[in-house]
Amino acid sequence: MTDASAPRPGLSAIFEPKSVAVVGASADPSRIGGRPIAYALRAGFKGRIYPVNPNREEIQGLKAYPSLDAIPDEIDFVLLAIPAKAVPAALAAAAAKGARGAVLFTAGFAEVGAEGAAMQAELVATARAHGIRLLGPNCLGMFNTEVGHTPTFTSGLESGMPLPGRVGLVTQSGAYGTHLLSMARDRRIGVKVWVSTGNEADVTAPECIEYLVKSDSVDVIGAYMEGVNDREALFRALAAARAARKPVVMMKVGSSAIGAEAAASHTASLAGSDASFDAALRRFGVLRARTTEEMLDVLYAASISPLPRGRKLAVVTVSGGAGVLMSDAAEEYGLEMPALPQDAQDRILARNPLAAARNPVDLTATVLNDFPIVTEGLQALEEAGGGYDMTAAFFTSWTASPVVGPKLRAAILAGLPGGVTTPFAMICQGGPEVNDAYEPDGMMIFEDPSRAIRALAALATLGEGFARAEAEEADPEPLPELPEGFALPAHALSEREAKALIASAGIPVPQETLAATPEQAAEAAAALGGPCVLKIVSPDIAHKTEVGGVALNVSGGPAMLAAAQAMLASVAAHAPDARIEGLLVGPMISGGVELIVGARRDPVMGPVVLIGLGGVFTEVLRDVAVRLAPVTRSEARAALNSLRGAALLHGARGAQPVDLDAAADAISRLSVIAAANPDGFDSLEINPLLARPDGVVALDALLTPLTAEETPA
Amino acid sequence: MTDASAPRPGLSAIFEPKSVAVVGASADPSRIGGRPIAYALRAGFKGRIYPVNPNREEIQGLKAYPSLDAIPDEIDFVLLAIPAKAVPAALAAAAAKGARGAVLFTAGFAEVGAEGAAMQAELVATARAHGIRLLGPNCLGMFNTEVGHTPTFTSGLESGMPLPGRVGLVTQSGAYGTHLLSMARDRRIGVKVWVSTGNEADVTAPECIEYLVKSDSVDVIGAYMEGVNDREALFRALAAARAARKPVVMMKVGSSAIGAEAAASHTASLAGSDASFDAALRRFGVLRARTTEEMLDVLYAASISPLPRGRKLAVVTVSGGAGVLMSDAAEEYGLEMPALPQDAQDRILARNPLAAARNPVDLTATVLNDFPIVTEGLQALEEAGGGYDMTAAFFTSWTASPVVGPKLRAAILAGLPGGVTTPFAMICQGGPEVNDAYEPDGMMIFEDPSRAIRALAALATLGEGFARAEAEEADPEPLPELPEGFALPAHALSEREAKALIASAGIPVPQETLAATPEQAAEAAAALGGPCVLKIVSPDIAHKTEVGGVALNVSGGPAMLAAAQAMLASVAAHAPDARIEGLLVGPMISGGVELIVGARRDPVMGPVVLIGLGGVFTEVLRDVAVRLAPVTRSEARAALNSLRGAALLHGARGAQPVDLDAAADAISRLSVIAAANPDGFDSLEINPLLARPDGVVALDALLTPLTAEETPA
Repeated sequence: MTDASAPRPGLSAIFEPKSVAVVGASADPSRIGGRPIAYALRAGFKGRIYPVNPNREEIQGLKAYPSLDAIPDEIDFVLLAIPAKAVPAALAAAAAKGARGAVLFTAGFAEVGAEGAAMQAELVATARAHGIRLLGPNCLGMFNTEVGHTPTFTSGLESGMPLPGRVGLVTQSGAYGTHLLSMARDRRIGVKVWVSTGNEADVTAPECIEYLVKSDSVDVIGAYMEGVNDREALFRALAAARAARKPVVMMKVGSSAIGAEAAASHTASLAGSDASFDAALRRFGVLRARTTEEMLDVLYAASISPLPRGRKLAVVTVSGGAGVLMSDAAEEYGLEMPALPQDAQDRILARNPLAAARNPVDLTATVLNDFPIVTEGLQALEEAGGGYDMTAAFFTSWTASPVVGPKLRAAILAGLPGGVTTPFAMICQGGPEVNDAYEPDGMMIFEDPSRAIRALAALATLGEGFARAEAEEADPEPLPELPEGFALPAHALSEREAKALIASAGIPVPQETLAATPEQAAEAAAALGGPCVLKIVSPDIAHKTEVGGVALNVSGGPAMLAAAQAMLASVAAHAPDARIEGLLVGPMISGGVELIVGARRDPVMGPVVLIGLGGVFTEVLRDVAVRLAPVTRSEARAALNSLRGAALLHGARGAQPVDLDAAADAISRLSVIAAANPDGFDSLEINPLLARPDGVVALDALLTPLTAEETPA
Repeated sequence: MTDASAPRPGLSAIFEPKSVAVVGASADPSRIGGRPIAYALRAGFKGRIYPVNPNREEIQGLKAYPSLDAIPDEIDFVLLAIPAKAVPAALAAAAAKGARGAVLFTAGFAEVGAEGAAMQAELVATARAHGIRLLGPNCLGMFNTEVGHTPTFTSGLESGMPLPGRVGLVTQSGAYGTHLLSMARDRRIGVKVWVSTGNEADVTAPECIEYLVKSDSVDVIGAYMEGVNDREALFRALAAARAARKPVVMMKVGSSAIGAEAAASHTASLAGSDASFDAALRRFGVLRARTTEEMLDVLYAASISPLPRGRKLAVVTVSGGAGVLMSDAAEEYGLEMPALPQDAQDRILARNPLAAARNPVDLTATVLNDFPIVTEGLQALEEAGGGYDMTAAFFTSWTASPVVGPKLRAAILAGLPGGVTTPFAMICQGGPEVNDAYEPDGMMIFEDPSRAIRALAALATLGEGFARAEAEEADPEPLPELPEGFALPAHALSEREAKALIASAGIPVPQETLAATPEQAAEAAAALGGPCVLKIVSPDIAHKTEVGGVALNVSGGPAMLAAAQAMLASVAAHAPDARIEGLLVGPMISGGVELIVGARRDPVMGPVVLIGLGGVFTEVLRDVAVRLAPVTRSEARAALNSLRGAALLHGARGAQPVDLDAAADAISRLSVIAAANPDGFDSLEINPLLARPDGVVALDALLTPLTAEETPA
């Protein structure tokens, strides 16, 4: 028996065993216990298969054994197609034979309630005690065509093994994973490894992703996710993928759940878990696909094409309409379409006066009579200072024509003498022969122009993620440092205390005076001169305005005296039990742009920062950016610029631009506080952080501690 | 010769001739002059075909004639595959034989410049003089499989005639239209009629749409548009489609041109022509597709399915993941997913305790062992008070299984004893056999769940358009009436005059006094009491703020005297040549929500209204709604509610809701002014229209007349 707390073995026994026992093996290749054997035989499994069935001598041409004990050799992996109650004994027997991996198809565990969950916990304990990694239960298994290992009953292999290729697919839904598998075949994606993780009692989807990152036979990874329980494992897997420069395309369902979380508090609802999930994927350069089709298109593209260095798109077309359509799509998906340099335009027009040469480059149907126009057009693009990062070329049904097709292909290849070095999408028609004619040279085939542009834009996003990784690895940007001994208290803070806290971390706050009495407040106002702000100070009052605890634009001692007296009376009436620590007097600071900057502990993704413009932008338009904490100043700046209302920061409507560096610095500092205390707070919000041309200042701050049930044990 | 100004004959000679002459006929079925004949023979053209070629006795098995004159019979239609210079004589000869329709493939006319345009104009004059309707030039022709008429050289028929069906396709791009045709075949759309309109020298795309609306053999119309020259023809066609309840799905490219119109004025850039195009399509209930795939999905759906009465979606699934995915998509595409009534949920759970019964209804894989669960689940949905308008049902690859497929189909049909009465989308896998198994019963087949939901939402939008049409036909909402003799002047108006004008049309304005001198202004301010606004009045000053021509919050006579004197000095300095008509004194009105409401003459779509929230919403976020003028009050109200910032009107952030009825009334009145003067103004803008809980008031108004070159001759 293995110590349950010891490091768990890796997944190679699950993904690439040399010998497999199938307990509950069936002679019928359509049954759950029969399919995995039939598939393995078809896939040419390179190891040994031991069907276990007490009632048969032979199963699907293989010698069968009455029990695991009866198998004469060691086994690496055991497939369990048996009732739940028989599983513990089978695991023990498998372990005795040396097994380190197992898959359990059976349903009826944690997904059906408390009793099933208890059974599942027991199962995991048994597996761990025996040093066995367990895939499932309630899953459809997996396959790895590299070694022909197919412990799965998915119907996705019924029509044959996947196309050759180097894509790995991880799915948390067996049924939808099967659907994906069929769609992937139609999309010409070669799925090398597929794994459905079911209840994830032991092996999780992030672990499988990490395994695929390390696998030599997989280059591109797709994942269909429904939820994540272990963020550290997810981050580890995605960081590994990024370090290995393996593109990951992920679909995460459940985004509309945000809408249902109506009762959540203000910041909570904005930083809801879907936005935090997005933030995590952004951090690691993962491409989040919104639809199945998008995921498959991007997997297809990434498995064929190099990644681009930028977003400059050249469009070549033989239909003006398709050129316009692709220009629209380029704008929608954030690609740039700079015009060709004038000399390149001149060259194209000299050759073909009917052409449009700006970009899109419309070579027109004249090409049909003069294919070198294509070659020369592509050369003109290539030689245009190397300015384009990718090409979309519309040739409609010409590719499929027996007469025109080969001429076109030759003309295109002649136009790319150095081969495909930047993404090249052909938008055209035809069957698998057309794919076979272009894909081996690195050209992608699409039928719908909009889908081609979307995929090119996705490649650009993946390329940007890797470029960021490269830059960070070469020259990591330092994070702001917190002062020695900086700590977040575990209790609520008054505004004054919260401001002092963030000030100590380097975030500018106004110079304020804490007055004990209205008279002291009046003195402070007189000393400050000019208009002042007066606020109540109490650890028990989170929303000061609601109790009459804020007075703006109070000028001079007498006015301040009156305002302070009125405030104390109002607060006493509205919040009679609140502990009053005093009255805060500060200068009235106005103008600039109000930001809301919050740090929050997401229950799934941990500490995140939330950045928005104040007022209607956050409250009505939900125009916020969420990022995993910590963020560097550059990341904070990029997040600010990603807001729909970012123009306001750059001086829209005649205003002066605000000090973006100062804003980014404050955000970065707040994010460092949050990251240093991942389980130590609920939220820490600066609202507003006033951004002005000459800097920023936090006009209010609020620390909300964890509630009792959130506090980690 | 026909009088060129007489009403032009209809398009039946083009779409359904009984006899066709092909001038430039080729014996080679792959050549431009050969393909149309080969296609017609394959399509079983019901009329007679007369190849014209002086060098051959026989062409593709048909007797050939040396010239049009030599044809012994009357002909209805002539196809011209000959050089441009031979066309006029051929048209004359065709007319002499009775032809009333012609198609001209030849390029090199208006699309290549002024000389070509002159040739094209001559061509049209010739055709009109002979009473012939002309399709093209520079087009790929058309086909109508109802009669086997195929005067086209599109390669889209090379692989065979289209599938049977009742969809009509109109395309302004021949090459892209051909691409569409191939994609339509893959999408299982039966294209009955296809027409590419090329240069539209005579016959236009809108006319073709109108023809298809009147055709008995077409039920659903798709259109690929690049531009519109004749808005009246477009409106007529779309109104006819709406009256006939024939769904129209349109793709219009060139939307990114808006981005390029950077130099346009403020309102102009917002009401750019793409937004106006959108407004036109909305008016007539046309579904605008953003991608080719979307257009084809919606054409497919509309050609199979009934339209829904509302947006309530029931999701049935055998995979929990797919259910969540479709719920996400439903939210994205604006469909509602109300929960099943409790008794229906109880019924489903009693039958299958593993199910999820709320909506999505997850029947789980248990179904594989117990197909009546599907039947009973569908019945429970159906009997749930008739609450659902449409169903999406995910059955993955089961449909394609030889064993499971037939059982599943029987179970589904048993669950729909009344047949398909509301849209029913199957999300599943399989080839044409699966389509054939479900489509004849009115069920749609999709593989991608998100695409299925998008198509269902599009059907809902089409259904809403027809429901609005029905309501308007039954009980048309009256438009506000303008006073007798109301007229827009053809010259610029001062603010005071513009306000007087809109006030006479029933739009509330503040009570203001025109003062001739600072002293009179002071008197007016004293009489009004309270804070006042002072503005310069001049027909020569459009932007008053820029010349110091606006003073806010001026209280009392002495302050007003000073402000007025300062203003006159400032205006004299900044705009020394401006004619000053006086000083306008009015009450300072604040609070509420500022709207921008403008009427504008779109160069393509005519008068439109533009509605937005003031400030950052319009200037930074471009959050505006554009509608064709006139709009009823209900339409104006719906436009206001369509704004992203609409929550502000309903009392966001603790404010009182504004008087939406009053705002809608003002918008409707402005739109009536615009519609009554389609070519009489450039723009008429109210900025701001202040909307408050107790009504609206136009705080400023500006009429911009047409420039000289815009004025219709």
